Amino acid sequence: MNMPQWQGGDEPAYSFGSELLRWLAPPHDGPEETVAVPEPDGSSPPVSRGIKWCAALLSQARAAREAIERHAPDRIVTLGGDCLVDLAPMAYLSRRYGEKLGVLWLDAHPDVMSAAEFSHAHAHVLALLLGRGDEAFTAEVPRKLDARRVMIAGMQGWNADEDLILKELGIRHIPPAVLADSSRPILDWIETEGITHLAVHFDLDVLDPAHFSPLLFNRPGMPEGAFDGIEQGRMQLDQVVRLLKEIGAAVDMVGLAIAEHLPWDMLRLRNSLAELPIMKS
Amino acid sequence: MNMPQWQGGDEPAYSFGSELLRWLAPPHDGPEETVAVPEPDGSSPPVSRGIKWCAALLSQARAAREAIERHAPDRIVTLGGDCLVDLAPMAYLSRRYGEKLGVLWLDAHPDVMSAAEFSHAHAHVLALLLGRGDEAFTAEVPRKLDARRVMIAGMQGWNADEDLILKELGIRHIPPAVLADSSRPILDWIETEGITHLAVHFDLDVLDPAHFSPLLFNRPGMPEGAFDGIEQGRMQLDQVVRLLKEIGAAVDMVGLAIAEHLPWDMLRLRNSLAELPIMKS
Repeated sequence: MNMPQWQGGDEPAYSFGSELLRWLAPPHDGPEETVAVPEPDGSSPPVSRGIKWCAALLSQARAAREAIERHAPDRIVTLGGDCLVDLAPMAYLSRRYGEKLGVLWLDAHPDVMSAAEFSHAHAHVLALLLGRGDEAFTAEVPRKLDARRVMIAGMQGWNADEDLILKELGIRHIPPAVLADSSRPILDWIETEGITHLAVHFDLDVLDPAHFSPLLFNRPGMPEGAFDGIEQGRMQLDQVVRLLKEIGAAVDMVGLAIAEHLPWDMLRLRNSLAELPIMKS
Repeated sequence: MNMPQWQGGDEPAYSFGSELLRWLAPPHDGPEETVAVPEPDGSSPPVSRGIKWCAALLSQARAAREAIERHAPDRIVTLGGDCLVDLAPMAYLSRRYGEKLGVLWLDAHPDVMSAAEFSHAHAHVLALLLGRGDEAFTAEVPRKLDARRVMIAGMQGWNADEDLILKELGIRHIPPAVLADSSRPILDWIETEGITHLAVHFDLDVLDPAHFSPLLFNRPGMPEGAFDGIEQGRMQLDQVVRLLKEIGAAVDMVGLAIAEHLPWDMLRLRNSLAELPIMKS
Protein backbone atom coordinates (compact mmCIF):
# COMPACT_ATOMS: atom_id res chain seq x y z
CA MET A 1 0.00 0.00 0.00
CA ASN A 2 1.31 3.41 -1.00
CA MET A 3 0.36 6.21 1.33
CA PRO A 4 1.86 9.57 0.36
CA GLN A 5 0.54 11.15 3.55
CA TRP A 6 2.32 14.35 4.53
CA GLN A 7 -0.09 16.05 6.92
CA GLY A 8 0.93 13.99 9.98
CA GLY A 9 4.27 15.80 9.95
CA ASP A 10 2.92 18.93 8.22
CA GLU A 11 5.70 18.53 5.63
CA PRO A 12 4.75 18.35 1.95
CA ALA A 13 7.98 16.52 1.04
CA TYR A 14 6.67 13.29 2.59
CA SER A 15 4.46 12.89 -0.45
CA PHE A 16 7.43 12.91 -2.85
CA GLY A 17 9.33 10.61 -0.48
CA SER A 18 6.53 8.05 -0.70
CA GLU A 19 6.46 8.15 -4.51
CA LEU A 20 10.20 7.66 -4.72
CA LEU A 21 10.09 4.85 -2.17
CA ARG A 22 7.61 3.06 -4.38
CA TRP A 23 9.99 3.44 -7.33
CA LEU A 24 12.84 2.03 -5.23
CA ALA A 25 10.89 -0.93 -3.86
CA PRO A 26 11.28 -4.29 -5.61
CA PRO A 27 8.48 -5.53 -7.88
CA HIS A 28 5.82 -7.69 -6.22
CA ASP A 29 2.88 -9.73 -7.39
CA GLY A 30 0.32 -8.89 -4.74
CA PRO A 31 -2.44 -6.32 -5.09
CA GLU A 32 -1.42 -2.68 -4.74
CA GLU A 33 -3.43 0.25 -3.45
CA THR A 34 -2.56 3.92 -3.30
CA VAL A 35 -4.42 5.98 -0.72
CA ALA A 36 -5.54 9.29 -2.20
CA VAL A 37 -3.96 12.20 -0.38
CA PRO A 38 -4.67 15.82 -1.36
CA GLU A 39 -1.67 17.70 -2.71
CA PRO A 40 -0.38 20.37 -0.35
CA ASP A 41 -1.56 23.77 -1.53
CA GLY A 42 0.46 25.93 0.82
CA SER A 43 -2.46 26.75 3.09
CA SER A 44 -1.89 26.81 6.83
CA PRO A 45 -2.94 23.68 8.69
CA PRO A 46 -6.46 23.55 10.14
CA VAL A 47 -6.31 22.29 13.74
CA SER A 48 -9.01 20.18 15.40
CA ARG A 49 -8.79 18.81 18.92
CA GLY A 50 -5.15 19.97 19.00
CA ILE A 51 -4.15 18.03 15.87
CA LYS A 52 -2.98 19.68 12.67
CA TRP A 53 -4.85 18.45 9.55
CA CYS A 54 -6.95 16.29 11.86
CA ALA A 55 -9.91 15.76 9.53
CA ALA A 56 -7.74 14.87 6.52
CA LEU A 57 -5.66 12.43 8.56
CA LEU A 58 -8.72 10.69 9.91
CA SER A 59 -10.28 10.45 6.48
CA GLN A 60 -7.05 9.01 5.05
CA ALA A 61 -6.75 6.47 7.88
CA ARG A 62 -10.27 5.30 7.07
CA ALA A 63 -9.49 5.14 3.35
CA ALA A 64 -6.41 3.04 4.16
CA ARG A 65 -8.53 0.69 6.27
CA GLU A 66 -11.02 0.30 3.44
CA ALA A 67 -8.21 -0.33 0.94
CA ILE A 68 -6.81 -3.07 3.17
CA GLU A 69 -10.22 -4.62 3.81
CA ARG A 70 -10.87 -4.83 0.07
CA HIS A 71 -8.13 -7.47 -0.12
CA ALA A 72 -7.98 -8.87 3.43
CA PRO A 73 -4.29 -9.69 2.86
CA ASP A 74 -2.06 -11.97 4.92
CA ARG A 75 0.77 -9.44 4.71
CA ILE A 76 0.99 -5.70 4.16
CA VAL A 77 3.87 -3.54 2.99
CA THR A 78 3.15 0.17 3.49
CA LEU A 79 5.23 2.87 1.86
CA GLY A 80 4.87 6.27 3.54
CA GLY A 81 4.62 9.05 4.06
CA ASP A 82 4.74 10.16 7.67
CA CYS A 83 4.69 7.66 10.55
CA LEU A 84 0.93 7.86 10.99
CA VAL A 85 0.55 5.83 7.75
CA ASP A 86 0.98 2.74 9.94
CA LEU A 87 -2.28 3.22 11.87
CA ALA A 88 -4.59 1.24 9.57
CA PRO A 89 -2.10 -1.54 8.65
CA MET A 90 -1.18 -2.22 12.29
CA ALA A 91 -4.84 -2.07 13.36
CA TYR A 92 -5.73 -4.60 10.65
CA LEU A 93 -2.87 -6.95 11.51
CA SER A 94 -3.77 -6.74 15.21
CA ARG A 95 -7.29 -7.87 14.47
CA ARG A 96 -6.13 -10.58 12.10
CA TYR A 97 -3.38 -12.14 14.19
CA GLY A 98 -4.41 -11.21 17.74
CA GLU A 99 -2.06 -12.41 20.43
CA LYS A 100 0.24 -14.07 17.92
CA LEU A 101 1.26 -10.63 16.60
CA GLY A 102 4.32 -8.77 17.79
CA VAL A 103 5.12 -5.18 16.79
CA LEU A 104 8.69 -4.05 16.34
CA TRP A 105 8.91 -0.27 16.27
CA LEU A 106 12.24 0.78 14.73
CA ASP A 107 12.38 4.46 15.51
CA ALA A 108 14.51 7.14 17.12
CA HIS A 109 11.27 8.35 18.78
CA PRO A 110 8.56 6.50 20.68
CA ASP A 111 5.58 8.06 18.82
CA VAL A 112 3.53 8.03 22.00
CA MET A 113 2.62 11.68 22.44
CA SER A 114 -0.89 13.02 22.07
CA ALA A 115 -2.41 16.37 21.15
CA ALA A 116 -1.72 17.58 24.70
CA GLU A 117 2.02 17.38 24.01
CA PHE A 118 2.41 17.85 20.24
CA SER A 119 0.13 18.82 17.36
CA HIS A 120 1.82 16.59 14.74
CA ALA A 121 -0.05 13.30 14.73
CA HIS A 122 2.84 11.31 13.26
CA ALA A 123 4.24 11.39 16.82
CA HIS A 124 1.00 9.85 18.20
CA VAL A 125 0.66 6.65 16.25
CA LEU A 126 2.08 4.01 18.58
CA ALA A 127 0.07 5.34 21.53
CA LEU A 128 -3.08 5.34 19.37
CA LEU A 129 -2.48 1.66 18.56
CA LEU A 130 -2.38 0.99 22.29
CA GLY A 131 -5.56 2.95 22.85
CA ARG A 132 -4.19 6.21 24.21
CA GLY A 133 -4.96 9.50 22.45
CA ASP A 134 -7.60 11.10 20.28
CA GLU A 135 -10.76 9.02 20.41
CA ALA A 136 -11.62 9.31 16.74
CA PHE A 137 -8.26 7.75 15.89
CA THR A 138 -8.26 5.10 18.62
CA ALA A 139 -11.71 4.08 17.36
CA GLU A 140 -9.89 2.98 14.18
CA VAL A 141 -8.10 0.34 16.28
CA PRO A 142 -10.77 -2.21 17.29
CA ARG A 143 -8.23 -4.52 18.89
CA LYS A 144 -5.60 -2.55 20.75
CA LEU A 145 -2.01 -3.76 20.83
CA ASP A 146 -0.78 -5.39 24.00
CA ALA A 147 2.29 -3.51 25.31
CA ARG A 148 4.06 -6.79 26.10
CA ARG A 149 4.17 -7.59 22.41
CA VAL A 150 5.45 -4.16 21.38
CA MET A 151 9.15 -3.36 21.32
CA ILE A 152 10.71 -0.04 20.37
CA ALA A 153 14.17 -0.57 18.93
CA GLY A 154 16.94 1.91 18.18
CA MET A 155 15.76 4.64 20.54
CA GLN A 156 18.52 6.38 22.48
CA GLY A 157 16.68 9.21 24.24
CA TRP A 158 13.20 10.58 24.87
CA ASN A 159 11.68 13.60 26.53
CA ALA A 160 10.01 13.88 29.94
CA ASP A 161 6.47 13.67 28.54
CA GLU A 162 7.38 10.58 26.58
CA ASP A 163 9.02 9.04 29.61
CA LEU A 164 5.81 9.27 31.61
CA ILE A 165 3.70 7.87 28.80
CA LEU A 166 6.11 4.99 28.09
CA LYS A 167 5.89 3.99 31.75
CA GLU A 168 2.13 4.41 31.85
CA LEU A 169 1.71 2.22 28.78
CA GLY A 170 4.43 -0.21 29.83
CA ILE A 171 6.27 -0.20 26.50
CA ARG A 172 9.80 -1.59 26.46
CA HIS A 173 12.66 -0.28 24.34
CA ILE A 174 16.16 -1.25 23.32
CA PRO A 175 18.89 1.29 22.58
CA PRO A 176 20.71 1.28 19.23
CA ALA A 177 24.12 0.28 20.63
CA VAL A 178 22.73 -3.05 21.85
CA LEU A 179 21.42 -3.88 18.38
CA ALA A 180 24.47 -2.73 16.42
CA ASP A 181 26.03 -6.20 16.33
CA SER A 182 23.31 -8.49 17.63
CA SER A 183 19.65 -9.26 17.00
CA ARG A 184 19.55 -11.44 20.11
CA PRO A 185 17.50 -9.11 22.38
CA ILE A 186 14.72 -8.95 19.79
CA LEU A 187 14.82 -12.69 19.14
CA ASP A 188 14.61 -13.31 22.90
CA TRP A 189 11.59 -11.03 23.21
CA ILE A 190 9.90 -12.83 20.30
CA GLU A 191 10.48 -16.18 21.96
CA THR A 192 9.48 -15.10 25.45
CA GLU A 193 6.20 -13.56 24.31
CA GLY A 194 5.33 -16.42 21.97
CA ILE A 195 5.21 -14.13 18.94
CA THR A 196 4.82 -16.01 15.65
CA HIS A 197 3.80 -13.11 13.39
CA LEU A 198 5.61 -9.79 13.36
CA ALA A 199 4.74 -6.35 12.03
CA VAL A 200 7.63 -3.95 11.65
CA HIS A 201 7.39 -0.18 11.71
CA PHE A 202 10.59 1.13 10.15
CA ASP A 203 10.86 4.87 10.67
CA LEU A 204 13.92 5.77 8.60
CA ASP A 205 14.85 8.35 11.20
CA VAL A 206 16.16 5.49 13.35
CA LEU A 207 19.17 5.84 11.01
CA ASP A 208 22.09 8.14 11.69
CA PRO A 209 21.54 11.31 9.59
CA ALA A 210 25.31 11.66 9.18
CA HIS A 211 25.35 8.42 7.17
CA PHE A 212 21.96 8.47 5.48
CA SER A 213 20.85 11.73 3.91
CA PRO A 214 17.11 11.47 3.11
CA LEU A 215 15.97 12.32 6.64
CA LEU A 216 14.18 15.21 8.27
CA PHE A 217 17.32 16.33 10.06
CA ASN A 218 19.10 16.89 6.76
CA ARG A 219 16.50 19.31 5.51
CA PRO A 220 18.45 21.92 3.53
CA GLY A 221 18.50 25.57 4.52
CA MET A 222 17.65 25.03 8.18
CA PRO A 223 19.20 27.49 10.64
CA GLU A 224 21.94 26.21 12.93
CA GLY A 225 20.40 24.48 15.95
CA ALA A 226 16.93 24.09 14.40
CA PHE A 227 16.79 20.47 15.57
CA ASP A 228 18.48 20.98 18.94
CA GLY A 229 16.92 18.82 21.61
CA ILE A 230 15.28 16.45 19.13
CA GLU A 231 16.68 12.95 19.31
CA GLN A 232 18.43 11.78 16.13
CA GLY A 233 18.93 8.19 14.99
CA ARG A 234 22.13 6.25 15.61
CA MET A 235 21.70 3.07 13.58
CA GLN A 236 23.29 2.14 10.26
CA LEU A 237 21.19 0.90 7.34
CA ASP A 238 23.09 -2.38 7.12
CA GLN A 239 22.46 -3.01 10.83
CA VAL A 240 18.71 -2.66 10.28
CA VAL A 241 18.83 -4.97 7.24
CA ARG A 242 20.77 -7.58 9.21
CA LEU A 243 18.30 -7.28 12.10
CA LEU A 244 15.25 -7.69 9.88
CA LYS A 245 16.77 -10.63 7.98
CA GLU A 246 17.65 -12.46 11.18
CA ILE A 247 14.21 -11.80 12.64
CA GLY A 248 12.56 -12.79 9.36
CA ALA A 249 14.20 -16.19 9.66
CA ALA A 250 12.62 -16.70 13.10
CA VAL A 251 9.10 -15.37 12.61
CA ASP A 252 6.56 -14.70 9.88
CA MET A 253 6.95 -11.05 8.95
CA VAL A 254 3.40 -10.01 8.10
CA GLY A 255 3.76 -6.24 8.13
CA LEU A 256 6.35 -3.67 7.16
CA ALA A 257 5.79 0.06 6.99
CA ILE A 258 8.56 2.35 5.85
CA ALA A 259 8.03 5.93 6.90
CA GLU A 260 9.61 9.38 7.02
CA HIS A 261 11.50 9.14 3.74
CA LEU A 262 12.60 12.67 2.87
CA PRO A 263 15.01 12.57 -0.08
CA TRP A 264 15.80 16.29 -0.15
CA ASP A 265 18.44 16.21 -2.88
CA MET A 266 16.20 14.20 -5.20
CA LEU A 267 13.36 16.65 -4.59
CA ARG A 268 15.60 19.63 -5.32
CA LEU A 269 16.92 17.95 -8.45
CA ARG A 270 13.41 17.11 -9.67
CA ASN A 271 12.23 20.66 -9.09
CA SER A 272 15.34 22.06 -10.75
CA LEU A 273 14.98 19.85 -13.83
CA ALA A 274 11.39 20.99 -14.24
CA GLU A 275 12.55 24.61 -14.34
CA LEU A 276 15.13 24.23 -17.11
CA PRO A 277 14.14 25.84 -20.41
CA ILE A 278 14.73 22.83 -22.70
CA MET A 279 12.75 20.52 -20.40
CA LYS A 280 9.63 22.61 -20.90
CA SER A 281 9.50 22.52 -24.67
CA MET B 1 17.68 10.00 -24.66
CA ASN B 2 18.44 7.79 -21.71
CA MET B 3 21.97 6.47 -21.59
CA PRO B 4 22.72 4.40 -18.49
CA GLN B 5 26.40 4.19 -19.44
CA TRP B 6 28.69 3.33 -16.56
CA GLN B 7 31.85 2.05 -18.24
CA GLY B 8 33.29 5.52 -18.97
CA GLY B 9 33.87 5.96 -15.26
CA ASP B 10 34.13 2.21 -14.53
CA GLU B 11 31.43 2.65 -11.86
CA PRO B 12 28.29 0.46 -12.03
CA ALA B 13 26.25 2.98 -10.01
CA TYR B 14 26.04 5.35 -13.01
CA SER B 15 23.48 3.00 -14.49
CA PHE B 16 21.14 3.34 -11.51
CA GLY B 17 21.79 7.11 -11.48
CA SER B 18 20.55 7.35 -15.05
CA GLU B 19 17.37 5.40 -14.33
CA LEU B 20 16.56 7.56 -11.35
CA LEU B 21 17.28 10.75 -13.30
CA ARG B 22 14.72 9.64 -15.86
CA TRP B 23 12.18 9.15 -13.08
CA LEU B 24 12.94 12.63 -11.75
CA ALA B 25 12.78 14.38 -15.12
CA PRO B 26 9.52 16.08 -16.09
CA PRO B 27 7.24 14.41 -18.64
CA HIS B 28 7.81 15.37 -22.28
CA ASP B 29 6.08 14.75 -25.57
CA GLY B 30 9.04 14.12 -27.83
CA PRO B 31 10.34 10.71 -28.86
CA GLU B 32 12.40 8.85 -26.29
CA GLU B 33 15.23 6.39 -26.82
CA THR B 34 17.16 4.32 -24.30
CA VAL B 35 20.60 3.19 -25.39
CA ALA B 36 21.17 -0.46 -24.45
CA VAL B 37 24.06 -0.80 -22.02
CA PRO B 38 25.17 -4.20 -20.67
CA GLU B 39 24.67 -4.64 -16.93
CA PRO B 40 27.92 -4.70 -14.98
CA ASP B 41 28.79 -8.29 -14.09
CA GLY B 42 31.72 -7.60 -11.79
CA SER B 43 34.36 -8.57 -14.31
CA SER B 44 37.52 -6.48 -14.50
CA PRO B 45 37.57 -3.92 -17.28
CA PRO B 46 39.11 -4.93 -20.60
CA VAL B 47 41.50 -2.19 -21.79
CA SER B 48 42.11 -1.30 -25.45
CA ARG B 49 44.38 1.51 -26.58
CA GLY B 50 44.69 2.60 -22.95
CA ILE B 51 40.91 2.96 -22.45
CA LYS B 52 38.91 0.82 -20.04
CA TRP B 53 35.81 -0.80 -21.64
CA CYS B 54 36.88 0.79 -24.92
CA ALA B 55 34.93 -1.51 -27.24
CA ALA B 56 31.69 -1.25 -25.27
CA LEU B 57 31.95 2.54 -25.07
CA LEU B 58 32.52 2.86 -28.79
CA SER B 59 29.64 0.54 -29.58
CA GLN B 60 27.35 2.52 -27.25
CA ALA B 61 28.43 5.84 -28.78
CA ARG B 62 27.48 4.47 -32.19
CA ALA B 63 24.15 3.16 -30.89
CA ALA B 64 23.45 6.62 -29.45
CA ARG B 65 24.27 8.23 -32.82
CA GLU B 66 21.89 5.83 -34.58
CA ALA B 67 19.16 6.48 -32.01
CA ILE B 68 19.48 10.23 -32.58
CA GLU B 69 19.59 9.88 -36.36
CA ARG B 70 16.35 7.87 -36.30
CA HIS B 71 14.56 11.04 -35.22
CA ALA B 72 16.84 13.85 -36.45
CA PRO B 73 15.55 16.04 -33.62
CA ASP B 74 15.91 19.80 -33.23
CA ARG B 75 16.74 19.38 -29.55
CA ILE B 76 18.17 16.59 -27.42
CA VAL B 77 17.99 15.99 -23.68
CA THR B 78 20.40 13.25 -22.59
CA LEU B 79 20.20 11.62 -19.19
CA GLY B 80 23.43 9.87 -18.16
CA GLY B 81 25.33 8.00 -17.08
CA ASP B 82 28.95 9.07 -17.14
CA CYS B 83 30.12 12.20 -18.96
CA LEU B 84 30.97 10.36 -22.16
CA VAL B 85 27.22 9.99 -22.85
CA ASP B 86 27.44 13.46 -24.40
CA LEU B 87 29.66 12.40 -27.33
CA ALA B 88 26.92 11.49 -29.80
CA PRO B 89 24.45 14.26 -28.86
CA MET B 90 27.09 16.99 -29.11
CA ALA B 91 28.46 15.53 -32.36
CA TYR B 92 24.95 15.52 -33.84
CA LEU B 93 24.18 19.09 -32.72
CA SER B 94 27.53 20.28 -34.08
CA ARG B 95 26.67 18.90 -37.50
CA ARG B 96 23.14 20.23 -37.37
CA TYR B 97 23.83 23.77 -36.21
CA GLY B 98 27.45 24.32 -37.30
CA GLU B 99 28.89 27.71 -36.42
CA LYS B 100 25.64 28.82 -34.78
CA LEU B 101 26.20 26.30 -31.99
CA GLY B 102 27.85 27.15 -28.69
CA VAL B 103 28.76 24.55 -26.09
CA LEU B 104 28.58 25.37 -22.40
CA TRP B 105 30.45 22.77 -20.35
CA LEU B 106 29.34 23.00 -16.71
CA ASP B 107 31.88 20.85 -14.95
CA ALA B 108 34.42 20.84 -12.13
CA HIS B 109 36.79 19.14 -14.60
CA PRO B 110 37.73 19.98 -18.18
CA ASP B 111 37.25 16.43 -19.61
CA VAL B 112 40.17 16.97 -21.98
CA MET B 113 42.53 14.15 -21.06
CA SER B 114 43.26 11.21 -23.33
CA ALA B 115 44.36 7.62 -22.80
CA ALA B 116 47.92 8.85 -22.30
CA GLU B 117 46.85 10.57 -19.08
CA PHE B 118 43.83 8.60 -17.80
CA SER B 119 42.12 5.34 -18.69
CA HIS B 120 38.58 6.49 -17.85
CA ALA B 121 37.06 7.84 -21.05
CA HIS B 122 34.48 10.01 -19.28
CA ALA B 123 37.42 12.41 -18.73
CA HIS B 124 38.12 12.52 -22.50
CA VAL B 125 34.85 13.65 -23.99
CA LEU B 126 35.33 17.38 -24.51
CA ALA B 127 38.74 16.84 -26.14
CA LEU B 128 37.21 14.18 -28.41
CA LEU B 129 34.57 16.67 -29.54
CA LEU B 130 37.39 19.03 -30.51
CA GLY B 131 39.22 16.27 -32.39
CA ARG B 132 41.89 15.35 -29.86
CA GLY B 133 42.19 11.78 -28.58
CA ASP B 134 41.43 8.22 -29.63
CA GLU B 135 40.78 8.15 -33.37
CA ALA B 136 37.91 5.69 -33.23
CA PHE B 137 36.04 8.10 -30.98
CA THR B 138 36.99 11.31 -32.79
CA ALA B 139 35.74 9.63 -35.98
CA GLU B 140 32.29 9.78 -34.35
CA VAL B 141 32.53 13.59 -34.52
CA PRO B 142 32.36 14.49 -38.23
CA ARG B 143 32.25 18.22 -37.50
CA LYS B 144 34.59 19.10 -34.66
CA LEU B 145 33.65 21.84 -32.22
CA ASP B 146 35.40 25.18 -32.58
CA ALA B 147 37.17 26.06 -29.33
CA ARG B 148 35.96 29.67 -29.53
CA ARG B 149 32.40 28.49 -29.13
CA VAL B 150 33.17 26.24 -26.18
CA MET B 151 33.13 27.54 -22.62
CA ILE B 152 33.88 25.54 -19.50
CA ALA B 153 32.01 27.00 -16.52
CA GLY B 154 32.36 26.29 -12.83
CA MET B 155 35.91 24.93 -12.95
CA GLN B 156 38.16 26.07 -10.12
CA GLY B 157 41.31 23.99 -10.64
CA TRP B 158 42.91 21.53 -13.06
CA ASN B 159 46.05 19.44 -13.21
CA ALA B 160 49.26 20.06 -15.14
CA ASP B 161 48.33 17.70 -17.99
CA GLU B 162 44.97 19.38 -18.34
CA ASP B 163 46.59 22.81 -18.28
CA LEU B 164 48.76 21.97 -21.29
CA ILE B 165 45.84 20.49 -23.23
CA LEU B 166 43.51 23.40 -22.44
CA LYS B 167 46.13 25.79 -23.82
CA GLU B 168 46.83 23.60 -26.85
CA LEU B 169 43.12 23.43 -27.68
CA GLY B 170 42.48 27.06 -26.73
CA ILE B 171 39.46 26.37 -24.53
CA ARG B 172 38.34 29.13 -22.19
CA HIS B 173 36.92 28.65 -18.73
CA ILE B 174 35.18 30.64 -16.00
CA PRO B 175 35.57 29.87 -12.30
CA PRO B 176 32.53 29.19 -10.11
CA ALA B 177 32.87 32.33 -7.97
CA VAL B 178 32.34 34.58 -11.01
CA LEU B 179 29.09 32.78 -11.86
CA ALA B 180 27.70 32.58 -8.33
CA ASP B 181 25.68 35.78 -8.69
CA SER B 182 25.88 36.63 -12.36
CA SER B 183 25.31 34.97 -15.72
CA ARG B 184 26.85 37.98 -17.48
CA PRO B 185 30.19 36.40 -18.52
CA ILE B 186 28.35 33.57 -20.32
CA LEU B 187 25.88 35.97 -21.92
CA ASP B 188 28.78 38.13 -23.13
CA TRP B 189 30.53 35.11 -24.65
CA ILE B 190 27.29 34.09 -26.41
CA GLU B 191 26.92 37.57 -27.87
CA THR B 192 30.56 38.00 -28.87
CA GLU B 193 30.72 34.67 -30.67
CA GLY B 194 27.35 35.10 -32.38
CA ILE B 195 25.96 31.95 -30.78
CA THR B 196 22.23 31.46 -31.40
CA HIS B 197 21.92 27.77 -30.42
CA LEU B 198 23.41 26.36 -27.25
CA ALA B 199 24.15 22.83 -26.07
CA VAL B 200 24.76 22.45 -22.35
CA HIS B 201 26.78 19.69 -20.72
CA PHE B 202 25.80 19.65 -17.05
CA ASP B 203 28.13 17.41 -15.10
CA LEU B 204 26.52 17.34 -11.67
CA ASP B 205 29.96 17.28 -10.10
CA VAL B 206 30.19 21.01 -10.80
CA LEU B 207 28.06 21.19 -7.62
CA ASP B 208 29.52 21.38 -4.14
CA PRO B 209 29.43 17.84 -2.65
CA ALA B 210 28.87 19.34 0.80
CA HIS B 211 25.49 20.65 -0.36
CA PHE B 212 24.43 18.04 -2.90
CA SER B 213 24.89 14.41 -1.95
CA PRO B 214 24.46 12.27 -5.11
CA LEU B 215 28.03 12.82 -6.34
CA LEU B 216 31.09 10.65 -6.78
CA PHE B 217 32.86 12.37 -3.90
CA ASN B 218 30.17 11.26 -1.48
CA ARG B 219 30.62 7.59 -2.26
CA PRO B 220 30.08 5.79 1.05
CA GLY B 221 32.81 3.75 2.67
CA MET B 222 35.72 5.49 0.98
CA PRO B 223 38.92 5.76 3.03
CA GLU B 224 39.93 9.18 4.29
CA GLY B 225 41.76 11.08 1.56
CA ALA B 226 40.59 8.82 -1.29
CA PHE B 227 39.74 11.86 -3.40
CA ASP B 228 42.70 14.02 -2.37
CA GLY B 229 44.02 16.07 -5.25
CA ILE B 230 40.84 15.66 -7.32
CA GLU B 231 39.04 18.92 -7.87
CA GLN B 232 35.56 19.09 -6.34
CA GLY B 233 32.70 21.35 -7.45
CA ARG B 234 31.87 24.65 -5.80
CA MET B 235 28.55 25.68 -7.31
CA GLN B 236 25.09 25.53 -5.78
CA LEU B 237 22.18 23.88 -7.61
CA ASP B 238 20.10 27.07 -7.55
CA GLN B 239 22.99 29.01 -9.11
CA VAL B 240 23.10 26.57 -12.02
CA VAL B 241 19.32 26.76 -12.45
CA ARG B 242 19.45 30.56 -12.47
CA LEU B 243 22.31 30.50 -14.98
CA LEU B 244 20.52 28.13 -17.35
CA LYS B 245 17.25 30.04 -17.12
CA GLU B 246 18.93 33.36 -17.88
CA ILE B 247 20.86 31.84 -20.75
CA GLY B 248 17.74 30.08 -22.01
CA ALA B 249 16.06 33.47 -22.35
CA ALA B 250 18.90 34.70 -24.60
CA VAL B 251 19.53 31.72 -26.85
CA ASP B 252 17.82 28.59 -28.18
CA MET B 253 18.87 25.77 -25.88
CA VAL B 254 19.06 22.80 -28.23
CA GLY B 255 21.00 20.34 -26.08
CA LEU B 256 21.22 19.39 -22.44
CA ALA B 257 23.06 16.39 -21.07
CA ILE B 258 22.98 15.65 -17.36
CA ALA B 259 25.78 13.36 -16.27
CA GLU B 260 27.48 11.79 -13.27
CA HIS B 261 24.37 11.32 -11.14
CA LEU B 262 25.35 8.97 -8.32
CA PRO B 263 22.52 8.84 -5.74
CA TRP B 264 24.30 6.61 -3.25
CA ASP B 265 21.66 6.69 -0.52
CA MET B 266 18.90 5.81 -2.95
CA LEU B 267 20.97 2.91 -4.30
CA ARG B 268 21.64 1.63 -0.78
CA LEU B 269 17.98 1.96 0.11
CA ARG B 270 16.87 0.15 -3.05
CA ASN B 271 19.32 -2.69 -2.42
CA SER B 272 18.30 -2.87 1.23
CA LEU B 273 14.58 -3.02 0.44
CA ALA B 274 15.17 -5.88 -1.98
CA GLU B 275 16.84 -7.87 0.80
CA LEU B 276 14.01 -7.62 3.34
CA PRO B 277 12.11 -10.87 3.93
CA ILE B 278 8.56 -9.55 3.39
CA MET B 279 9.57 -7.83 0.15
CA LYS B 280 10.54 -11.13 -1.41
CA SER B 281 7.28 -12.96 -0.85
